[in-house]
Amino acid sequence: MVDFYFFLNFTNMKKITILIHCKDQSGIIAAVTNFIASIGGNIVYIDQHVDQEQEVFFMRLEGEFEKASFNTSDFKIQFQQKIADLFNMSWELHTAAYLPKMALFVSKYEHCLYDILGRYKSGELTLEIPLIVSNHLDLKPIADSFGIPFFHVPVSKDNKSEAEAKHLALLSEHAIDFIVLARYMQIIPEGFINQYPHKIINIHHSFLPAFVGAKPYHSAYKRGVKIIGATSHYVTVELDAGPIIEQDVTRVSHTHSISDLVSKGRDLEKIVLSTGIKLHLDRKVMVYNNKTVIFS
Amino acid sequence: MVDFYFFLNFTNMKKITILIHCKDQSGIIAAVTNFIASIGGNIVYIDQHVDQEQEVFFMRLEGEFEKASFNTSDFKIQFQQKIADLFNMSWELHTAAYLPKMALFVSKYEHCLYDILGRYKSGELTLEIPLIVSNHLDLKPIADSFGIPFFHVPVSKDNKSEAEAKHLALLSEHAIDFIVLARYMQIIPEGFINQYPHKIINIHHSFLPAFVGAKPYHSAYKRGVKIIGATSHYVTVELDAGPIIEQDVTRVSHTHSISDLVSKGRDLEKIVLSTGIKLHLDRKVMVYNNKTVIFS
Amino acid sequence: MVDFYFFLNFTNMKKITILIHCKDQSGIIAAVTNFIASIGGNIVYIDQHVDQEQEVFFMRLEGEFEKASFNTSDFKIQFQQKIADLFNMSWELHTAAYLPKMALFVSKYEHCLYDILGRYKSGELTLEIPLIVSNHLDLKPIADSFGIPFFHVPVSKDNKSEAEAKHLALLSEHAIDFIVLARYMQIIPEGFINQYPHKIINIHHSFLPAFVGAKPYHSAYKRGVKIIGATSHYVTVELDAGPIIEQDVTRVSHTHSISDLVSKGRDLEKIVLSTGIKLHLDRKVMVYNNKTVIFS
Amino acid sequence: MVDFYFFLNFTNMKKITILIHCKDQSGIIAAVTNFIASIGGNIVYIDQHVDQEQEVFFMRLEGEFEKASFNTSDFKIQFQQKIADLFNMSWELHTAAYLPKMALFVSKYEHCLYDILGRYKSGELTLEIPLIVSNHLDLKPIADSFGIPFFHVPVSKDNKSEAEAKHLALLSEHAIDFIVLARYMQIIPEGFINQYPHKIINIHHSFLPAFVGAKPYHSAYKRGVKIIGATSHYVTVELDAGPIIEQDVTRVSHTHSISDLVSKGRDLEKIVLSTGIKLHLDRKVMVYNNKTVIFS
Repeated sequence: MVDFYFFLNFTNMKKITILIHCKDQSGIIAAVTNFIASIGGNIVYIDQHVDQEQEVFFMRLEGEFEKASFNTSDFKIQFQQKIADLFNMSWELHTAAYLPKMALFVSKYEHCLYDILGRYKSGELTLEIPLIVSNHLDLKPIADSFGIPFFHVPVSKDNKSEAEAKHLALLSEHAIDFIVLARYMQIIPEGFINQYPHKIINIHHSFLPAFVGAKPYHSAYKRGVKIIGATSHYVTVELDAGPIIEQDVTRVSHTHSISDLVSKGRDLEKIVLSTGIKLHLDRKVMVYNNKTVIFS
Repeated sequence: MVDFYFFLNFTNMKKITILIHCKDQSGIIAAVTNFIASIGGNIVYIDQHVDQEQEVFFMRLEGEFEKASFNTSDFKIQFQQKIADLFNMSWELHTAAYLPKMALFVSKYEHCLYDILGRYKSGELTLEIPLIVSNHLDLKPIADSFGIPFFHVPVSKDNKSEAEAKHLALLSEHAIDFIVLARYMQIIPEGFINQYPHKIINIHHSFLPAFVGAKPYHSAYKRGVKIIGATSHYVTVELDAGPIIEQDVTRVSHTHSISDLVSKGRDLEKIVLSTGIKLHLDRKVMVYNNKTVIFS
Repeated sequence: MVDFYFFLNFTNMKKITILIHCKDQSGIIAAVTNFIASIGGNIVYIDQHVDQEQEVFFMRLEGEFEKASFNTSDFKIQFQQKIADLFNMSWELHTAAYLPKMALFVSKYEHCLYDILGRYKSGELTLEIPLIVSNHLDLKPIADSFGIPFFHVPVSKDNKSEAEAKHLALLSEHAIDFIVLARYMQIIPEGFINQYPHKIINIHHSFLPAFVGAKPYHSAYKRGVKIIGATSHYVTVELDAGPIIEQDVTRVSHTHSISDLVSKGRDLEKIVLSTGIKLHLDRKVMVYNNKTVIFS
Repeated sequence: MVDFYFFLNFTNMKKITILIHCKDQSGIIAAVTNFIASIGGNIVYIDQHVDQEQEVFFMRLEGEFEKASFNTSDFKIQFQQKIADLFNMSWELHTAAYLPKMALFVSKYEHCLYDILGRYKSGELTLEIPLIVSNHLDLKPIADSFGIPFFHVPVSKDNKSEAEAKHLALLSEHAIDFIVLARYMQIIPEGFINQYPHKIINIHHSFLPAFVGAKPYHSAYKRGVKIIGATSHYVTVELDAGPIIEQDVTRVSHTHSISDLVSKGRDLEKIVLSTGIKLHLDRKVMVYNNKTVIFS
């Protein structure tokens, strides 16, 4: 990994990603692409989406600049003045050099934790995992075997606000960018959510909006569905109702018991959660109106 | 078709299908298979299922007998006395010779109608379609072009019981075995449902239990799901809550408008409904506790 | 349908689609979008792809112009001079008004024919079908019932060049834009293919490149695969080796006989072929290096 | 785990699984089920399959006996004399108590190894992994972190037979029941294969029979397929041509580079290999004529 980044530093190209949304108007694409070209950039990827119903425009653009000629603060000032102000845009700039910091919250189920840590260790996820937080001690040995600091923060009816304070302190201390609830099984308090808007990714073990809440596999079994699913979504204040990032499903039949559904569902949960993490990491998700635009 | 059945009549084997369910007990499989063997039958297929939670046993068996040695009424009497009474079974016997009679109920959407009639004409569905019933006249030309009698029974707030009476009269007159609602878009009255228990198949254009009721594609769009589905199920008194026969899904994205969902959904509806019809036709569906056992 | 087009004629916007490919270079996107903006157009959709290995750039753009201010020939001249010559582009312009003319070639299997005609009649395919061509008479009644002219052109070892001449004459006479082989089961001669490059769509009943050639379901059965597929592709001189437009698959098991595979495959073939037709129709397919770029 | 088996030992029921195949004949099912009933057993699962073309009968049966009344050797003798000899059966008896011993062969890719070890540690795979064997040292740290003995057996052109001898000695020494090649990337010699017939499971990173041999993702990219796959199969002497246990696929598009295919393929490989392992473990696979029967 070190060698790889060392090498990247010695290319003379700077790669940037821009995410834009604003009211749909004529001429946005031309204005943005023309601006990039005018300051010597090359567009290597562009994708755009218009929500026709809401009349909102979304764009994701990847560009390359010669390092010598690119200055991040200058770019920000100029883009704001010449483009963003003109179209009343909300926009973000990301540069490829930064490795996002992800916190993992877990409880007692280990399958998503093993899956994420395996992907992390094999270089599939280009991020840092400064800490794992849990309300139980059960998964500490796994964190230890992968060499990741583990923090035990018990949560009970009586210590909820104290636990929240500890959580927020840990996240702040480790400069965490986003949080993944890898079957954490606890409801995140509103104050916590508001500090990390669209930055907490949960995996729900059903095909939302079917089977919201606890024990979805039991409900799926009872209803006799022929397909079960899993959903990764951003956490919002309303339970299991946040913007959906990714979903996947698998066939089941009358031969499957509840524990078979749980077992088959584990594989779905792993894939759907890690896909959600990767999309977030690659800045391919934009949220609007409690829905996501997922760029390719 | 005629030649085919002519040929079948000249084989000297009689093919039967038996469906059984009863409280789970020791020795059922041995008793049934031993009985079939004892009267000279050969079992060509056997599948069984035990609902461990409810302690219910289900079995589907296909057997062959030499025609000369098989008498349907004798078989029924003997099986009842020697086996069914012993285990307190509910059971059905079906013989391959009979072509079930299916009524099609449609409204204004033609895609499922075209699909079913295409399959019917090409010999994929071994049944008879004595009539098509609709509350509108729009699809009459399609019925005509396929040479199937079309009955127009308008339904309004004021004539509901009159319409129901007409429906039931038509079904009775044509000796209909089961009814398929091919996007019929009208609620079937309780009295009608009770006359055809688990014999009315509906296609619902969502992945049930998500998006029950009207306009599921609109709801799916609003929720921002990444996968849409369709469900074929037996109609029961509670809306869209009957035993699920088959479901299927397809991926969608933020780029799809509501009308794209409607369009993609049409293909799902066609496949899921025709699969449901075929499973029902092949006597592969057993209903218990508002769920289905689907034999392979 | 008439009313709908009547209405369209009275909007004052002209919708165009441009497809571009050329060697990958800096500044293409900015140049194109800037050009469209400079002549008063609004870009409603843009998607681009770069084949990094081959260094080829592909773009699909949909734009809208006020009718009063848009002239097709002027646009073509200006775009060629100001943009296409600059980047040495290959490009095409399509206007939404034109309804493409599709010829259907069939043999004895009716499932794809029924499927396409059902979609056509219900307005799902916005095209014209001036004729159906077949080497057999079996499917003539279907063509008749849908009111489409049917031409019987027998093909044998001895009359191949005569048949080809008849085919080409029919296609020319009816000003056919593209041809769909709906399980036509005959090899198309090289001369024919060369007159319709990337304009003949075939459905092959396997997951290519597995099981090229005749009887793929038999081969799939023999190999014991757990999934079967279908592939729609443009016909090229090498059998079943042309650019793939769409593929889909379905699960099978040891319980399925060859005829079960054939039956399950029919549904795949219908969906995969009609998806291929729709992508071609919507100008969403570009061919390069015997592969396709499929825009969303 | 210990507690669980401890508990099992204290139930008074003995669970057995029988796999049978023989020429298809009348009366097999009745004879077998009657035999089980006659010695006091209860059949909890039965599934059968007839290969109509080859006229071969397959059966999988799970039964329960009171421990006090069941003796394995007696059962074997009686079943052989009273049933198997009568129908000239090949058959196997498995008892639930035994934990199979699996050897893992790996090379440099870690994703399947992480996946299998994660499932193993979380109790999803009820087996023992006495050793991991590799021709490289790269993955030793993973084996160490999971506490599993790692044996480094380098393989080169010059030491092939020596390496084979070492492999066979290790397997014998650890009483290995079956071997999993988790992206081992070396061809297994014929002598080795013959010692473990249908007991070596490989994962091939394509949808077989497409893209046999090396670099299937490169070939898939070059052919422009829209779906890629993975296949788990028993190793036979002909490369990538053994009986297929499980396959799965995922959609790809022109936007995916070869390294994207590799990355998407990893998730397929993990699921397809672990499914293959579980089916083998549960005695749900029977091999005949280079194909598998997979019981549900």
